[in-house]
Amino acid sequence: MNERYERGIGMLNQITGRSGESVVKALADYAPALACMVVEFPYGDVFSRPQLSLKQRELSTVAVLAAAGNARDQLKVHIHGAFNVGLTREEIMETIIHTAVFAGFPAAINGIFAMKEVEEERTEPTLRA
Amino acid sequence: MNERYERGIGMLNQITGRSGESVVKALADYAPALACMVVEFPYGDVFSRPQLSLKQRELSTVAVLAAAGNARDQLKVHIHGAFNVGLTREEIMETIIHTAVFAGFPAAINGIFAMKEVEEERTEPTLRA
Amino acid sequence: MNERYERGIGMLNQITGRSGESVVKALADYAPALACMVVEFPYGDVFSRPQLSLKQRELSTVAVLAAAGNARDQLKVHIHGAFNVGLTREEIMETIIHTAVFAGFPAAINGIFAMKEVEEERTEPTLRA
Amino acid sequence: MNERYERGIGMLNQITGRSGESVVKALADYAPALACMVVEFPYGDVFSRPQLSLKQRELSTVAVLAAAGNARDQLKVHIHGAFNVGLTREEIMETIIHTAVFAGFPAAINGIFAMKEVEEERTEPTLRA
Amino acid sequence: MNERYERGIGMLNQITGRSGESVVKALADYAPALACMVVEFPYGDVFSRPQLSLKQRELSTVAVLAAAGNARDQLKVHIHGAFNVGLTREEIMETIIHTAVFAGFPAAINGIFAMKEVEEERTEPTLRA
Amino acid sequence: MNERYERGIGMLNQITGRSGESVVKALADYAPALACMVVEFPYGDVFSRPQLSLKQRELSTVAVLAAAGNARDQLKVHIHGAFNVGLTREEIMETIIHTAVFAGFPAAINGIFAMKEVEEERTEPTLRA
Repeated sequence: MNERYERGIGMLNQITGRSGESVVKALADYAPALACMVVEFPYGDVFSRPQLSLKQRELSTVAVLAAAGNARDQLKVHIHGAFNVGLTREEIMETIIHTAVFAGFPAAINGIFAMKEVEEERTEPTLRA
Repeated sequence: MNERYERGIGMLNQITGRSGESVVKALADYAPALACMVVEFPYGDVFSRPQLSLKQRELSTVAVLAAAGNARDQLKVHIHGAFNVGLTREEIMETIIHTAVFAGFPAAINGIFAMKEVEEERTEPTLRA
Repeated sequence: MNERYERGIGMLNQITGRSGESVVKALADYAPALACMVVEFPYGDVFSRPQLSLKQRELSTVAVLAAAGNARDQLKVHIHGAFNVGLTREEIMETIIHTAVFAGFPAAINGIFAMKEVEEERTEPTLRA
Repeated sequence: MNERYERGIGMLNQITGRSGESVVKALADYAPALACMVVEFPYGDVFSRPQLSLKQRELSTVAVLAAAGNARDQLKVHIHGAFNVGLTREEIMETIIHTAVFAGFPAAINGIFAMKEVEEERTEPTLRA
Repeated sequence: MNERYERGIGMLNQITGRSGESVVKALADYAPALACMVVEFPYGDVFSRPQLSLKQRELSTVAVLAAAGNARDQLKVHIHGAFNVGLTREEIMETIIHTAVFAGFPAAINGIFAMKEVEEERTEPTLRA
Repeated sequence: MNERYERGIGMLNQITGRSGESVVKALADYAPALACMVVEFPYGDVFSRPQLSLKQRELSTVAVLAAAGNARDQLKVHIHGAFNVGLTREEIMETIIHTAVFAGFPAAINGIFAMKEVEEERTEPTLRA
């Protein structure tokens, strides 16, 4: 347990809450090296840098993942994250709509349906959130 | 000249300054229908919605274009835009670095070199800015 | 209800029939702004321009979505659309096969399996079409 | 010189004219196996199938390559090809504009600038066409 | 049944075993032309060339498909293939982890979860393998 | 200068030689945080893991970057790297040709032309290598 890992796990929990922690746990059982890297590099090294607020980082992350359109699970984790760090429902939705300009309508539409699922999960605490 | 176009051209100038305006002009001579759509839909309809600040929109845009890695000219226009709407040098650079997590290091490195070119252009007003 | 929206909803119905209309309705309940944009810009502004026939537009759309490989639902909607505007089964299948050259075999294979699902849906009217 | 190769080289010349032939020649000197495959599979096997007209194939190809945004040279070869098989300037331009809906505005804008270069080349026969 | 097809079907069986054969069969019923091309070009022409070992080809294929992140079924077929041609569990897992550098963490994480499913399938012979 | 950085810089030099070192230097002057991350994570953490040989890592890297088609400079650095760690000309060329199956012909063709440039650079030591 090095310093990067400890800082990373704290950041991961703060941002993604239970949804990200469960991904890392599922990963840790099967591919512990990658689970370790995920905690240390993205969360321990990058997200914990002070140059951007967590709101700015989650806004960017949701935009990038919605635009890419090939990582739906991670998009959902970071829409949860966007809510968790204090972005409003309106800001998150608009960030996804904004991607229609740069990545086309299918990306934006699929991103919005992912967000709808996230919001349903957040109102059903026994199920998943 | 409808209302969407007028709102769009104002927004385009505010965000991209001379760099975006010159793209639209080059487009207008050759493909006026697309030039018109670019002004009306992205800038007249989307960027002018109040749900996100222009700083948030440019942050997202730079992230999406850096991550995609296949639209270098547009990335440069929106790095200019990010400066123009008041994001700091540190915020823009960090937004590009952040994409390494989600889109890999080549995207982040190429995004940073595009930003370096933009900064050089901004100090040479007679050349391009 | 502006002119662009009315023209768009007519075009959407003509092309996608029930499959596209149900997507827009699902969207309208949750993200009305995006639902509105989808009708107005793609269908009201672009698809309704006379420079290409609807057959040419749906052929291009199926090719683009099959090649991209990250928007399966939209691909299915537009394979329905391709049938609806009068493209033959042979033309649609060949358009998907053609993408193997430019986007690789996985894209073409997954596109063909999406088309197979669409054809099954079209023979079961009570289920989904 | 097998049958697939002969059929392919004929098709390649018909579609891409000198622009495609010169790519294959440049390839043949350095990587003859790939040059051979390019002639045999895309042109000998796929483009020569009768299920789509060459106009339909070039329309789809231009759409796919413009949308992908990462193969500018091939996009230009196939915009030449689209002209060569008889698509009108209006149809080609509109096919590129159409991709804005599905792949975003940067793809469409860059595709249009590629088309502009192609049209300039076609009026300068001594240079390249 | 030409020479390319026969060589291809042998190679396909050797690499993908039952998982690839069943994809080709499903394809052959619906789109026989594509099923034929899949056997002839990728397996008959490319995989059977002697310049790379099958271990090197499956290593590259797993890397490319994990990085692309938009062809999960084909990724799984080729993780099976990587095992079938003799790559170790450690080599396959590391190849997927390696993609985090070039394609970002979501690609690597989703690739690892695909590999986990493959390993579960390989221990349940009655189910799928 | 921590342990990860030192291990990373040694690995970077071993793999990419002067071509990678010069990229990191250009980066270090402008964006030192990213230059540091590039050395520490890809090279210090990932490439230095023993689960794959450097030949296997460079083979995978060339395949991924050729298939992606949007990071030409990095592809060239890693084609140099592939030569530097002992892959043969024939293996590297075939790895790029192999991507035609999974990512389409434009990716393979552009990858081969990038390799041609690399080989020209390697015979002109005063110029760049």
